[in-house]
Amino acid sequence: MKREQIIYENQFNLETINKFASLMTVGNGYLGVRATHEEDYTEQTRGMYVAGIYNKALPNETSDLVNLPDLVGVKIKLNGQLFSLLDGEILSYERQLNLFNGELKREVMWMNKDGARFKFIFQRFVAKDKLHVLASKVTIISLDKEVNLQIVTGINAQQTNFGRQHIIEEKLRIFEEKYMQGIYTTTESGHTVALASSFLYPSESKVSYGAKNRQLQSTVDQKMVVGNPYVFEKVGTVFTSLNNIDVTDLDKLSLNSIKHYASQGYDLLLTESALKWKEFWEDKRIYIHSTNKFDQQAIDFALYQLEIMTPAHDERFSVGAKGLTGEGYKGHIFWDTEIFIKPFHLLNDPKIAKQLLRYRYLKLEQAKEKAIKNGYNGALFPWESAFSGEEETPEYAAINIKTGERQKVASALAEHHIVADIAYAVVNYYQATLDDEFMKKEGLALLKETSRFWISRATEENGKLVINNVIGPDEYTEHINNNAYTNYMAYYNVEQALYFMAMYEEVDNLLIKLCRDFLDRIYLPKPNGNNIIPQDDTFLDKPKIDLTSYKKRQGSQSILLEYSRKEVNEMQILKQADVVMLLYLFPDLFSKEVILDNLYYYEKHTIHDSSLSKAIHAIVAARCGETTIAYKLFKEACLIDLGPNPHSSDEGLHAASLGAIWLAIVYGFANISFKKDRLALNPELPAEWEEINFPIQYRRTKLIISLTRNEVNITRVFGPELVIEIGNQQYLLTQNININLSNFYVTKLRENTTTKGD
Amino acid sequence: MKREQIIYENQFNLETINKFASLMTVGNGYLGVRATHEEDYTEQTRGMYVAGIYNKALPNETSDLVNLPDLVGVKIKLNGQLFSLLDGEILSYERQLNLFNGELKREVMWMNKDGARFKFIFQRFVAKDKLHVLASKVTIISLDKEVNLQIVTGINAQQTNFGRQHIIEEKLRIFEEKYMQGIYTTTESGHTVALASSFLYPSESKVSYGAKNRQLQSTVDQKMVVGNPYVFEKVGTVFTSLNNIDVTDLDKLSLNSIKHYASQGYDLLLTESALKWKEFWEDKRIYIHSTNKFDQQAIDFALYQLEIMTPAHDERFSVGAKGLTGEGYKGHIFWDTEIFIKPFHLLNDPKIAKQLLRYRYLKLEQAKEKAIKNGYNGALFPWESAFSGEEETPEYAAINIKTGERQKVASALAEHHIVADIAYAVVNYYQATLDDEFMKKEGLALLKETSRFWISRATEENGKLVINNVIGPDEYTEHINNNAYTNYMAYYNVEQALYFMAMYEEVDNLLIKLCRDFLDRIYLPKPNGNNIIPQDDTFLDKPKIDLTSYKKRQGSQSILLEYSRKEVNEMQILKQADVVMLLYLFPDLFSKEVILDNLYYYEKHTIHDSSLSKAIHAIVAARCGETTIAYKLFKEACLIDLGPNPHSSDEGLHAASLGAIWLAIVYGFANISFKKDRLALNPELPAEWEEINFPIQYRRTKLIISLTRNEVNITRVFGPELVIEIGNQQYLLTQNININLSNFYVTKLRENTTTKGD
Repeated sequence: MKREQIIYENQFNLETINKFASLMTVGNGYLGVRATHEEDYTEQTRGMYVAGIYNKALPNETSDLVNLPDLVGVKIKLNGQLFSLLDGEILSYERQLNLFNGELKREVMWMNKDGARFKFIFQRFVAKDKLHVLASKVTIISLDKEVNLQIVTGINAQQTNFGRQHIIEEKLRIFEEKYMQGIYTTTESGHTVALASSFLYPSESKVSYGAKNRQLQSTVDQKMVVGNPYVFEKVGTVFTSLNNIDVTDLDKLSLNSIKHYASQGYDLLLTESALKWKEFWEDKRIYIHSTNKFDQQAIDFALYQLEIMTPAHDERFSVGAKGLTGEGYKGHIFWDTEIFIKPFHLLNDPKIAKQLLRYRYLKLEQAKEKAIKNGYNGALFPWESAFSGEEETPEYAAINIKTGERQKVASALAEHHIVADIAYAVVNYYQATLDDEFMKKEGLALLKETSRFWISRATEENGKLVINNVIGPDEYTEHINNNAYTNYMAYYNVEQALYFMAMYEEVDNLLIKLCRDFLDRIYLPKPNGNNIIPQDDTFLDKPKIDLTSYKKRQGSQSILLEYSRKEVNEMQILKQADVVMLLYLFPDLFSKEVILDNLYYYEKHTIHDSSLSKAIHAIVAARCGETTIAYKLFKEACLIDLGPNPHSSDEGLHAASLGAIWLAIVYGFANISFKKDRLALNPELPAEWEEINFPIQYRRTKLIISLTRNEVNITRVFGPELVIEIGNQQYLLTQNININLSNFYVTKLRENTTTKGD
Repeated sequence: MKREQIIYENQFNLETINKFASLMTVGNGYLGVRATHEEDYTEQTRGMYVAGIYNKALPNETSDLVNLPDLVGVKIKLNGQLFSLLDGEILSYERQLNLFNGELKREVMWMNKDGARFKFIFQRFVAKDKLHVLASKVTIISLDKEVNLQIVTGINAQQTNFGRQHIIEEKLRIFEEKYMQGIYTTTESGHTVALASSFLYPSESKVSYGAKNRQLQSTVDQKMVVGNPYVFEKVGTVFTSLNNIDVTDLDKLSLNSIKHYASQGYDLLLTESALKWKEFWEDKRIYIHSTNKFDQQAIDFALYQLEIMTPAHDERFSVGAKGLTGEGYKGHIFWDTEIFIKPFHLLNDPKIAKQLLRYRYLKLEQAKEKAIKNGYNGALFPWESAFSGEEETPEYAAINIKTGERQKVASALAEHHIVADIAYAVVNYYQATLDDEFMKKEGLALLKETSRFWISRATEENGKLVINNVIGPDEYTEHINNNAYTNYMAYYNVEQALYFMAMYEEVDNLLIKLCRDFLDRIYLPKPNGNNIIPQDDTFLDKPKIDLTSYKKRQGSQSILLEYSRKEVNEMQILKQADVVMLLYLFPDLFSKEVILDNLYYYEKHTIHDSSLSKAIHAIVAARCGETTIAYKLFKEACLIDLGPNPHSSDEGLHAASLGAIWLAIVYGFANISFKKDRLALNPELPAEWEEINFPIQYRRTKLIISLTRNEVNITRVFGPELVIEIGNQQYLLTQNININLSNFYVTKLRENTTTKGD
């Protein structure tokens, strides 16, 4: 285990307490538990979430990812004084999230106000091999004095989503003086949640149980002798009615499980879970030999988080914008999943990618209903989605406290590119897997219905089809016409539908005719005299301002403090650049010169207030051989969650930006792309990287790709032989290959373009 | 202002943080604000309540007194570090609730971890002369270093009732960069609540506003120079749709009011409010010259709390079991109000007593409905009542966590004495006021309907009427037959109905006939051979156990940890003694010998786990001249909230027990009683009391009564002349009188009975 695979916190700091609670989340895709301290702090937001458990607190609100009753909190009293690190003196403090085995561990040496010293070790993990299990262990050593120790812990249903309560307390039980169980239901969505907790303490302890004010608690009293470690373990299980179990049996399952797992004990459970993590890292880890050790940590962190945010166990839900790390965006699912998160899974474990697409397929009916409601045909997927598949975007934004008005949120009404993003992900999946079984059924259904939407969405102007009044990924320009990203994506969507209909001999003549007509007549913005592709019909005519000061405060949306949203809309100011996004998704659509010119033009006007922005710019820059700027952007993208901003991640991590770290390495610097019938590789490593090494799965073949600045080494681990294009050359990969890169096109292009720059 | 009129807290202590939050509540009967610190602590339960604003969080729950969005919390950051008394070092700490002017004030000298010292003064009050206004003022002095100060405060709707959310955030506004306003509705009861807050800070401060996650906040940044006090004021207003204002105008009223009051400023508002408090104390204070200074503090505290718990402004609600100091018993209204709280108002400001009875009159329809639902006639008042007048007793008790079963709560089904308690209070009101207008209408209606209930409630056994399957005030014996308290109270209820029907020539011959029959045949338990009145048909036959150890843990219901409720029910174990309660309400029903024998018998079997118990025992003992035991019980009763138990009052004060402190002095030691046509006085002061002095109003005459152990001095302040019975003598009070007590009957009785004792 290398030091890079550990996330450290070396100081107790209230200011970053919620950032680290998100960063150090433990989970397994089913369950996510924020890394809140066992003891309470007023600024600390506890959170435990189960993928798919959403609820509406009020009829006119949208669904929240429910913050479940807490299992993690422990009150510790020493001679009647509540333990808090604010009190007394911290003699030493170190907390670490071990990415390698999934364990969160905190070691504190602390002196109370009377000068008595104590050592605390807090350990916790969510089992990787057992979806429903979390476990914790607390060790307390009194170093100077005999003291009375009291520990209070249990299941606390006072937890809310920032004051919104979703949970009804149905049953509370103690079994065998040892197991606590709470059965809860959600108020609107009707899910049942069975939480159980065992509490193992030394046998000489005095224990009592009680339930009051939505808390089920056990209290243990014990004399602590000097130097003698007091150790207690708390194992928890979480089951819900989503587990397809008859609700009447949930209690039994919950009780039997807690008995079983508690009897195994913390250490054994951890060993078993750690084995699964070991497999994960052996299978999927990326190695970066960089002069900057942080690069390795950033990608390890990203992979750990991508793994624990993805509900690989169930196709009925997908990945929320904050994974299971916090309540930002209410746990809703955006285009982030298909475009930023799915690729990692696609090239590592394609069945997870399929499952994420199956989620959309299973919500096709709701998408069709949304299309009809909005006056369109086909499938209009919700901008924000949750369990039901219905539109979950709040109808109104937060109240403008100066005017008292709530602005209508336009995303659900106009941010339609998500439809094509899903279609893109479907095709992408097929390209990497050739999974005809999926493509014939789910894939084709998705492609056809999304095409139907675009056909109905376009309107005719002077013989051309135009797509008016949309919002592209750049949410600083709303209600614009012929957004380049949207129009090209729509074109691709319909084109691919036609392609796969032909391939599978689908006889839907009317749709085929409509698709052809759409492709013939849809307006696709072309580069202007300066090579610039207009982001929309009016964008390039809008005034420009100097964005330097706002760029310095990236991510804070500081521009909106000085300009109204409407004013921003009327200037060349981008949250993220749609054209750059387009160039990322279609690397071969324009010449490298056009790509570079657009990259620099739009970057200048982009604040990068979106966490999705930088890594994509990095990819496009890397592909153009602009590795210096690419690496700079990459490093900045890695800091979105891991950087010094104390509040960047309070309400959860930026799931898409974590996916984008992987994208930047694999699709950017390694420059992997899918040609129609083969995989292509055009690496452009930054000067700081001596070597990178990563696995991918492509069409059932698993490869390990090792790259230096001059060499490509590819090992075929398993699967059929494969043609790979490296530079302009094609190679048949039978076993391992080793290629010297020095004469290649990409390098040449870089030499041609070094006169450009920012 | 005497030191006794101040409640002190001399030490910051997490363990008692909620006790003192209840004890030091500021309020005015409309509004109650718990004395939580401005800064947050994890163990601290904030609370602001408006009388009458109840809501059901879920359809199958009962109403909660809603914990409204918080106006009191202030986050203070000094050089980016959040201020908390857990952190750094407390150099001095004093908090005081000034009962005399209603102001809560905290002065803290504090040193942060870097050794920089700060002085803080926090002041707060709820206006006594302006129902809707609360105001606070914070002074901060940096004593050693220039620091950056940040203050964050606003309106926080994350507040819940222990996790139950009642409030929908409807509108949030900032006006004129100065006034914050939040409009909220309750989820089920449909009340609207308009909260506003002004925030006045020195003009050089930088201020910004924001709203997120149910919080509306202002943030002020300011450099603090050494020694220069930084002072800011926050004035708040609370209006609700209960104010009979058109809801559409609530925002305007709220905004105009906050502008108006904020412009007056903290000091002026306090001066005006303090004037009202001064009037209150001049009018109603009791003076006790005792060797034990705590006695004066206890009665001052009781009067302050009785005043701020009573919604004297509105007859649509009454006094909850915890007043407006906390969420215990969910803010519900019990018999406590009529029997323990109303008498103080009756003898000080009878229109408030009338209003509390009007509350019951206004809920007569709901009481009749409850009677019908339960198979009875007349009016069966709910055991727990709130805004609607419907039964609010939870159908089931808390889950028994060992068995998983919820026991049915029997009180709503069997604790029927509340019907007669209300009738008793009606008659009592009339005796003290001769208010024929009330009595003819509301009083008679209440007496008739309650009588109808009892007539239907009784059943025939061997020619006698019996009342089976009830619970008396002593809730440790459930489902018993012919409870002495209940039967005698029912008799009195019907007897008085008959009396007032005759008086007002009510022609309801059927009811009159039924009443007469009831009085003829109702079984009234008589003293047995040992002078003991059986509490119910079987009580005296039940086994006895030694209660010494449980009495030591009075109030904790420790007996229930060792015996099941059912086991307790089958022994002579009392929470409070029904017979003693009966003897208190009817001092002339039995001979003094019988009274004394019963007092000692039942006291031995009473744990006093009910906070209503001790003061009543004290009264009965005092009346018998047993002043030593009476005073001991009185002192213990005064400690129910003010005593050392750190958690006795976490969820609010014991409103009835505070009323009972007044009762013990006036009805106990001064031994005031109402004879049919006159007021009687038979004082028995304890040895510790040199003199007491108290006002009462009786039949429109206001008296000041001064008592020493040997003398009675009575001053007629206003109102008609009055006959007063002192000892066995009657006096016509034209002006002041002065009587020497030495030869009187009560004294003699005491001499006769001194051989008895415990």
